[in-house]
Amino acid sequence: MTHRGFASDNYAGVHVEVLEAIASVNTGHQPAYGDDEVTARLQTVTQTHFGDEAQVYCVFNGTGANVVALQSACRPWEAVICARNAHIDADEGGAPEKVAGLKLHTVDTPDGKLTPELIDTQAWGFGVVHRAQPRAVSITQSTELGTVYSVNEIAAIAERVHSHGMVLHLDGARISNAAASLGASLRDFTTDAGVDLVSLGGTKNGALSAEAVVVLNPELATAVPFVRKTFMQLSSKMRFTSAQLIALFGGDLWLRSASHANSMAQRLSAGLHQIPGVIVTQQVQANAVFAILPPQVTTALQQRHHFYVWDHRTGEVRLMCSWDTTEEDIEVFLADVATEMQRG
Amino acid sequence: MTHRGFASDNYAGVHVEVLEAIASVNTGHQPAYGDDEVTARLQTVTQTHFGDEAQVYCVFNGTGANVVALQSACRPWEAVICARNAHIDADEGGAPEKVAGLKLHTVDTPDGKLTPELIDTQAWGFGVVHRAQPRAVSITQSTELGTVYSVNEIAAIAERVHSHGMVLHLDGARISNAAASLGASLRDFTTDAGVDLVSLGGTKNGALSAEAVVVLNPELATAVPFVRKTFMQLSSKMRFTSAQLIALFGGDLWLRSASHANSMAQRLSAGLHQIPGVIVTQQVQANAVFAILPPQVTTALQQRHHFYVWDHRTGEVRLMCSWDTTEEDIEVFLADVATEMQRG
Amino acid sequence: MTHRGFASDNYAGVHVEVLEAIASVNTGHQPAYGDDEVTARLQTVTQTHFGDEAQVYCVFNGTGANVVALQSACRPWEAVICARNAHIDADEGGAPEKVAGLKLHTVDTPDGKLTPELIDTQAWGFGVVHRAQPRAVSITQSTELGTVYSVNEIAAIAERVHSHGMVLHLDGARISNAAASLGASLRDFTTDAGVDLVSLGGTKNGALSAEAVVVLNPELATAVPFVRKTFMQLSSKMRFTSAQLIALFGGDLWLRSASHANSMAQRLSAGLHQIPGVIVTQQVQANAVFAILPPQVTTALQQRHHFYVWDHRTGEVRLMCSWDTTEEDIEVFLADVATEMQRG
Amino acid sequence: MTHRGFASDNYAGVHVEVLEAIASVNTGHQPAYGDDEVTARLQTVTQTHFGDEAQVYCVFNGTGANVVALQSACRPWEAVICARNAHIDADEGGAPEKVAGLKLHTVDTPDGKLTPELIDTQAWGFGVVHRAQPRAVSITQSTELGTVYSVNEIAAIAERVHSHGMVLHLDGARISNAAASLGASLRDFTTDAGVDLVSLGGTKNGALSAEAVVVLNPELATAVPFVRKTFMQLSSKMRFTSAQLIALFGGDLWLRSASHANSMAQRLSAGLHQIPGVIVTQQVQANAVFAILPPQVTTALQQRHHFYVWDHRTGEVRLMCSWDTTEEDIEVFLADVATEMQRG
Repeated sequence: MTHRGFASDNYAGVHVEVLEAIASVNTGHQPAYGDDEVTARLQTVTQTHFGDEAQVYCVFNGTGANVVALQSACRPWEAVICARNAHIDADEGGAPEKVAGLKLHTVDTPDGKLTPELIDTQAWGFGVVHRAQPRAVSITQSTELGTVYSVNEIAAIAERVHSHGMVLHLDGARISNAAASLGASLRDFTTDAGVDLVSLGGTKNGALSAEAVVVLNPELATAVPFVRKTFMQLSSKMRFTSAQLIALFGGDLWLRSASHANSMAQRLSAGLHQIPGVIVTQQVQANAVFAILPPQVTTALQQRHHFYVWDHRTGEVRLMCSWDTTEEDIEVFLADVATEMQRG
Repeated sequence: MTHRGFASDNYAGVHVEVLEAIASVNTGHQPAYGDDEVTARLQTVTQTHFGDEAQVYCVFNGTGANVVALQSACRPWEAVICARNAHIDADEGGAPEKVAGLKLHTVDTPDGKLTPELIDTQAWGFGVVHRAQPRAVSITQSTELGTVYSVNEIAAIAERVHSHGMVLHLDGARISNAAASLGASLRDFTTDAGVDLVSLGGTKNGALSAEAVVVLNPELATAVPFVRKTFMQLSSKMRFTSAQLIALFGGDLWLRSASHANSMAQRLSAGLHQIPGVIVTQQVQANAVFAILPPQVTTALQQRHHFYVWDHRTGEVRLMCSWDTTEEDIEVFLADVATEMQRG
Repeated sequence: MTHRGFASDNYAGVHVEVLEAIASVNTGHQPAYGDDEVTARLQTVTQTHFGDEAQVYCVFNGTGANVVALQSACRPWEAVICARNAHIDADEGGAPEKVAGLKLHTVDTPDGKLTPELIDTQAWGFGVVHRAQPRAVSITQSTELGTVYSVNEIAAIAERVHSHGMVLHLDGARISNAAASLGASLRDFTTDAGVDLVSLGGTKNGALSAEAVVVLNPELATAVPFVRKTFMQLSSKMRFTSAQLIALFGGDLWLRSASHANSMAQRLSAGLHQIPGVIVTQQVQANAVFAILPPQVTTALQQRHHFYVWDHRTGEVRLMCSWDTTEEDIEVFLADVATEMQRG
Repeated sequence: MTHRGFASDNYAGVHVEVLEAIASVNTGHQPAYGDDEVTARLQTVTQTHFGDEAQVYCVFNGTGANVVALQSACRPWEAVICARNAHIDADEGGAPEKVAGLKLHTVDTPDGKLTPELIDTQAWGFGVVHRAQPRAVSITQSTELGTVYSVNEIAAIAERVHSHGMVLHLDGARISNAAASLGASLRDFTTDAGVDLVSLGGTKNGALSAEAVVVLNPELATAVPFVRKTFMQLSSKMRFTSAQLIALFGGDLWLRSASHANSMAQRLSAGLHQIPGVIVTQQVQANAVFAILPPQVTTALQQRHHFYVWDHRTGEVRLMCSWDTTEEDIEVFLADVATEMQRG
């Protein structure tokens, strides 16, 4: 099983331009913990994407970005509204609750996307001490189900969130895929749409290990550097993290890589649609394809291809494309699906 | 100010052999979160150093290693005994308390080193609910003051710690410098001396960002992978962290680099001893030199050299040597010290 | 508005027998923190109800009992399965998450009751670090919706919970009402049904402020006294808490009071059923009645009677009876409902 | 061993006037959680002592008061400066660290009292993320060693604390003893001296279980009710807690009881001074006497009298007087001490 599979975009390696960027800043001594010249450059790069008020704080991983961002916005008795099965709810080992003490008020969604109306089902009880006070709403862009919020959808959410006196966090572990899908700038659906805090993802899009908290609402910036340190997300040799994000976002690598992954997902989805009996379950708007396969087909395919079952009850599987997925990977996989479906 | 200073061993960059190791594992897809072949190799490498029972768990940074290790050993009402001003007490932004809820029972020490007798000043109150229950003792090797525990000193501590039913953690952010100083294997003063948990440092010794928790007491191993995830220290593309640690510990790079840094510190210390009026305050056993300089000398030197004042009341400064410190760096610095002392 | 309402059973005062018990132990000095003779007697009383293995630990309030019990069963990466809108989910200000760091895996239920099948929708992912590990299931008896688990229902849940290697916690803030409803002993649906930990309620049933954690599974007992202290639930003058629980459970006051409250709820429910247009929404098995009233009727009634709207969207209200609710209270209220419904 | 000992002021029972006050408010239904008439009266009573800006929030116990107060003042990365062996450091089972995540920067003191100079040894590193940020200073009045801060001493501390941008918390578990000792009003050494937050003690001075957080700095009031709930310190039948505090502070019971306890400590101290070989180690300014006795004397005395050894190395013991200590208790104890010292 040596070829690329569809298990996760973090099974992929590091883009060669990112590796080169790491090597290029490996020259002599630099102040640690972010007081270096490379990190200063990243600050400039970030503002070209998110506007002049944006502040960037590198962290190690996506969970770190989310929990640092949310803790920075919330006091000890406050809580976060999110989609049930958002990454913060389902995939972070309880870090929001354990590390930050944050209660998550979860909302069921069909497609991973919150709406103003869904948010309102949990945005209540303000001032009542018995209820963990809703303070932040967290949305994921693109979502865990491969769907993408439109610019208008996020703007409508932000308006509702702010009308409650709350703040809006965007988990952008796959923010580049969302931008590529929308044909929008990063700023269009964050700063300009009213988002207050972004978890900016690099790792899934070709970095080695590089994520960041980007603060768009200046009132929230005070807390972030302190929370980052106390939450064990402050890198000593930070220039190497910053270099990775500059490699991605300083030019167009972020967009090239994400667009490629998205187009591979489109190709995969189109191919699956043509195989009788395979049901694609979610709109394919970013780099993920969700589909229902018969269990014996899944079992057979997993002998040769890495991918995960998303829902054992329905047989739904998740197929992730990444920056290095090739057309040949798709063709080989589709051929195997077709073969197994006929056999099944 | 482009040349290397003495501010910290994490102002240094990445050893070229480490960078090469990162590039060498950047081939195709690998399972994420440590289920890759490189991490499996690291497990073997770790056991050559720490014995067949050792289990290694990569994390992002030293604070992460310490807090994951200590939480894995402690229940919610338990506490840690450490030297006052140990890294966990003074330099982790309160992470042990905030993230793990751990009380630190601190002990004043003249040289950063605990002893069985000093430990006993805090190892009491077992079974009394009013006292946060002492459960772990944490020592740092080499210490924050550049001193090194002998093998026998650690063995005596471990015996005392275990006699209380407690466990012994060793913060080894600079463990290689200690081994080089002692002329001992890593195993001599950890596994064989009775240490239960090690924070294994790579970053300060030439890695990009690579630390690990090494569990020597198998009873403590269950908790570590869960705590690592919940404490946001689980890397997705872990093969790149593992490759760094293999680059260091798979051959002799760890020892070469640490020995070099230590010898530079010896040279620096010897030079300072010869400058009238400069007082070296701690034994120089690893890669740190502590010395008292007149304030105006410190101020003048800091125009040209990076280093930190350790104690503003006494004028004590800390001078750290690293794997890439050169003899010329030392000579230039010593000459400047001599000049400023004469001027002063 | 001086007469008794239906807002909550904790709007009621203290039963005179409880006050007398407090006064009766106010004689001279007694060791603090539970080492007194009264608390020793409570231990004996508790075992008459829950069996010889039971250990009782007084705490201040119901939230304290629940969070101490659950933390005592869970390690830092573990989680709790409960009904959405259970007291621990909806009414404790996020204490389980903030104080104990516990993630709650919530399950929607129509009547506040979990089942083995509902538990299984969350009891998965064991050994997978990304998922906060399910460790405890918490059920409420009687539930927040006034329903009661049968003995067999709890036994079936316990069997399923234990088959997963998990433990079962019973939030018994209104355990006496459940026992009265079932005509069962406390032991029947706890110790004998396989429950591991109980939050034993006294306050809502006529105590001043007296709750306790009762440990039925001896393996879980070690943690409780330490967690109780660290979680700020250890009373210094504990004899006065113990005396309250002895006043209730040392004789039949617990049962007399709970039976009375339940019968008042039956009477209230029967009366509401006879008023055209009023819909009783849940089975009335304990001391709560849930009913849907037109909004203007609710508004008018709240001028003269204390009670809460449970669901503003549907108009459902909650009417709680307590140990001191009188038949006259019921008659007056029913008459007012009837009048307002006609007017409406 | 049926007579009163000197183990702790919380071995004593409840003053009869407090019990009567509890009974007097046991009339019908009252809104729960503090929305009752009795708690409204307590608010007025509190302002007569602490000024018109004071806000009072009842809690269950002293640890609860301290941790709620300190969390209300601190953000997640902030820390508290206190005397080593203050109650929050030594006797709360690690609650400040575990429940609130607060690091304590401790300072050694000879007599339990901080000074501006001692505070400055820890009040540094502002803005440096590596150091848990000092935010609150906590002093205890009267101290754990039975000493009392003068009004001027507290005013000087407050001035220094505020000059650092920090806030001052006063742990007043024995605040009445301090006031009685000083001949000062409560306001003199709190509100008027610049204290921001008070833990107001009732239990040790004759209440059953009644403490409160009193907020003097209005900027800190927002957090308290939410933190109190989330930290499990919100009583449902709060009128009964409020009634206890009104019984104490609504008239002069607080002062009568504390003055009596203090005078008993003076008598005890004077008697001990006259027994050759007994060394009284601390100034006796409140209701505690610390003295060094030979170990065999302590052992013999503990056969007949409850009291605790404070320091096993020196033989120092703590003797607490309470509101119900009698002159006869003192005489009997002194006679026994004298007898044992002669025998020894």
